[in-house]
Amino acid sequence: MSLTLKLHFNLHNHHANKNTIINNHKYNNKNNINTCFSNKNIPQGTIYNTNPLIITMSKVESRTMRGGGNMIKSSLIEPDGGVLVDLVVGEGERGSKRVEAESLPKVKLNRIDVEWVHVIGEGWASPLRGFMREDEYLQTLHFNSLRLKDGCVVNMSLPIVLPIDDETKGKIGSSSNVGLVGLDGDCVAILRSIEIYKHNKEERIARTWGTIAPGLPYVEEVITQSGNWLIGGDLEVIKPIKYNDGLDNYRLSPKQLRREFDRRKADAVFAFQLRNPVHNGHALLMNDTRKRLLEMGYKNPILLLHPLGGFTKADDVPLDVRMEQHSKVLEDGILDPETTIVAIFPSPMHYAGPTEVQWHAKARINAGANFYIVGRDPAGMGHPTEKRDLYDPDHGKKVLSMAPGLEKLNILPFRVAAYDTTENKMAFFDPTRSKDFLFISGTKMRAYARSGENPPDGFMCPSGWKVLVNYYERLQMEEQAQQLAMLPT
Amino acid sequence: MSLTLKLHFNLHNHHANKNTIINNHKYNNKNNINTCFSNKNIPQGTIYNTNPLIITMSKVESRTMRGGGNMIKSSLIEPDGGVLVDLVVGEGERGSKRVEAESLPKVKLNRIDVEWVHVIGEGWASPLRGFMREDEYLQTLHFNSLRLKDGCVVNMSLPIVLPIDDETKGKIGSSSNVGLVGLDGDCVAILRSIEIYKHNKEERIARTWGTIAPGLPYVEEVITQSGNWLIGGDLEVIKPIKYNDGLDNYRLSPKQLRREFDRRKADAVFAFQLRNPVHNGHALLMNDTRKRLLEMGYKNPILLLHPLGGFTKADDVPLDVRMEQHSKVLEDGILDPETTIVAIFPSPMHYAGPTEVQWHAKARINAGANFYIVGRDPAGMGHPTEKRDLYDPDHGKKVLSMAPGLEKLNILPFRVAAYDTTENKMAFFDPTRSKDFLFISGTKMRAYARSGENPPDGFMCPSGWKVLVNYYERLQMEEQAQQLAMLPT
Repeated sequence: MSLTLKLHFNLHNHHANKNTIINNHKYNNKNNINTCFSNKNIPQGTIYNTNPLIITMSKVESRTMRGGGNMIKSSLIEPDGGVLVDLVVGEGERGSKRVEAESLPKVKLNRIDVEWVHVIGEGWASPLRGFMREDEYLQTLHFNSLRLKDGCVVNMSLPIVLPIDDETKGKIGSSSNVGLVGLDGDCVAILRSIEIYKHNKEERIARTWGTIAPGLPYVEEVITQSGNWLIGGDLEVIKPIKYNDGLDNYRLSPKQLRREFDRRKADAVFAFQLRNPVHNGHALLMNDTRKRLLEMGYKNPILLLHPLGGFTKADDVPLDVRMEQHSKVLEDGILDPETTIVAIFPSPMHYAGPTEVQWHAKARINAGANFYIVGRDPAGMGHPTEKRDLYDPDHGKKVLSMAPGLEKLNILPFRVAAYDTTENKMAFFDPTRSKDFLFISGTKMRAYARSGENPPDGFMCPSGWKVLVNYYERLQMEEQAQQLAMLPT
Repeated sequence: MSLTLKLHFNLHNHHANKNTIINNHKYNNKNNINTCFSNKNIPQGTIYNTNPLIITMSKVESRTMRGGGNMIKSSLIEPDGGVLVDLVVGEGERGSKRVEAESLPKVKLNRIDVEWVHVIGEGWASPLRGFMREDEYLQTLHFNSLRLKDGCVVNMSLPIVLPIDDETKGKIGSSSNVGLVGLDGDCVAILRSIEIYKHNKEERIARTWGTIAPGLPYVEEVITQSGNWLIGGDLEVIKPIKYNDGLDNYRLSPKQLRREFDRRKADAVFAFQLRNPVHNGHALLMNDTRKRLLEMGYKNPILLLHPLGGFTKADDVPLDVRMEQHSKVLEDGILDPETTIVAIFPSPMHYAGPTEVQWHAKARINAGANFYIVGRDPAGMGHPTEKRDLYDPDHGKKVLSMAPGLEKLNILPFRVAAYDTTENKMAFFDPTRSKDFLFISGTKMRAYARSGENPPDGFMCPSGWKVLVNYYERLQMEEQAQQLAMLPT
């Protein structure tokens, strides 16, 4: 627990301002992303104004360096396309680009468009250099992959596209370039050599989700009300995306992550994508993975604990609460901070199961991970209109293991963990004594926390659990306050 | 017009028996496929009991051989996977295999299952060796391609699967092999090392068609009422599929086609998939393609005129009528019989646009074609519930040109042909004088024929047009007779 945890405690012993947290989890608060550099909106006193693990790393590393060790230039895995895409314009050029952007026809971005600008701009989607043109879009829809000019194939399973409406299309006219306008009204990027093509929503939804049933969160939040055209082109980010929610320091780019893995002298990086609180079953498998990698002969496997930070559905636990919960899991030593990096993956969530898990894996290749942990029903959810899982829970890992362009990534399928009632802890499920095990789903976990009821001992570290209980208490208080405010006076 | 046409006339100057033709086009007549060798059901006197072009070929070739020419062993293009799959058991083994099949749990095939047994058994889907197991099914749904053990990728865009219901699954129990029972009650094949997995119809439909709108012909005919399970495994065909409709001689297997291309000393083979009568616009582009290939330096390009022979939707022109119409087009010299092979492609039709056109092209690779002609909206149809094309008419050729596993095939995109009113003939559309052109869609063509009205001169050869008019006359007579029969006496 050494230096890391001490630092961790030192930096993070204040509780977040209650109002700030309540605001943060409300996705529809469109002002939540501020695409500017100003720190004026950072909630002071939250526990997240730095990424303690990166600070720890740097200290560890600087000690090592002082001891005469050489930096291992460990590009463990090549980014897709060979070169990590970085579309953020250098500071020296930003002024002139901003002037140019202001002179162009404009496309107004919504919150999720901005998240995609963030994702593309930092190279998570390498070698993609902008919103998809039709050729890329069609390859994504039909083949979940892109063939590059040199004949190489890279994975690309989700359409990363920018819809526009008829009016915007009309205003663009025959211009080759457009300015992309962020939520605060500033131009955040230029899209060059644009191509405008039809947005067939039904086909996009059917091929991406394998259903067009009403109630798919991303469809309802983003696609349904979007325009009938898609605009593709080459992106230049002139104002890096900041959210000013106290978590920006956790938003490490693929370049920053690769640098950190090198500094840590990682000889294996295993990524864990999540959008839920970490319970001891998750921890078990992350720790077990590390053990397996050590047994395979790796000397310094590093865990990238990589919660998704973009759009999530209304009943998921919001990012700030999850980050606080993850922090407790590290403080409690459930995961080892010395061999863990916690960072935020800026992508929005599609809940598109086997199609989306490929995106989650592919993006982590670009961030430098060469091992990817995949569990039951990744990126899945209940069917929106039928009483069943939307996807076969085994399809995610099967599809991932066969996906074009992911051959170079080591897929680590999960053994299922459940609560072992004979030992009062999370353990790998043993089918020979299935009656001893209790499966606690995300829904059940949230129901426990919402009702203030404790889950069985050993399900989650108590301090992490407290974070969830507090969140649901605040949520209920807020809901009650709203109901009261709506009563006739 | 030489020998070929004389033979053609000699063999085919009788009109088909009216009742036979009327029966043949009725897809729901489940007795239409007879999976046996007996010729007793062949309608005598029809024009189709031999393939005149093949006879011609053999004569031409034997003359050439007598002249001392060497056979060119022209495998112009390798079958997918390197070896053409042929799953039809040798005659010597059939007896014992039939005994074995009879001892196994049985799966009863419907008409379209039998068509797929035909397709798989002859190697059109090479390297697929049976109905898909789940790994193949998932790769098809998500990637439209299969990765082979050696790392090579072959195209495979349509799920070729065999659905079974709960009761059949129960009866199969833990057996590793099953017998497949044809329409006449005989075992036609054995499926070995089976795997049974869930048939998620909604996901299959959405990912294959890009919609789940009601009214998709293959969905309504096949999928909706099919079982909740799919059974995959290795196929052994013990009784080659015959239809006894007078057209079996046109059903050349990929092996037979490759042999014929070799006999013809083809140095290029260009395939034209169709499910409609051939009008002069089609002929124009086939002849133009030949011209382009000659200009490219090929000496003997052969056209594979390859009408689809399996399931088609109710309002398409039935196979026997189309074959008669194609025959007239050759007799009239609109296409040159010396450089054309007419054969039937036994696959059922999905009407799945960009997804299906890949299957159409891939199957022709296996038959030896190294050029593939693709036009506007291949395998497309109107949206079943909205007033628009189901697919963007340009997506088919775009998707085809980018499809994994089809890199070795030369895709020849169509120039659009339309009726030029200034010259009274079908010509390539010239957008600079668009008012001069008349577009006659398949629907419009059928409406003309149905009403007995003639299309503009030069749209189709008169003898071919007569075939269509006669067909619709017979159809209307039959419909009237049915209506009369239903009146109260």
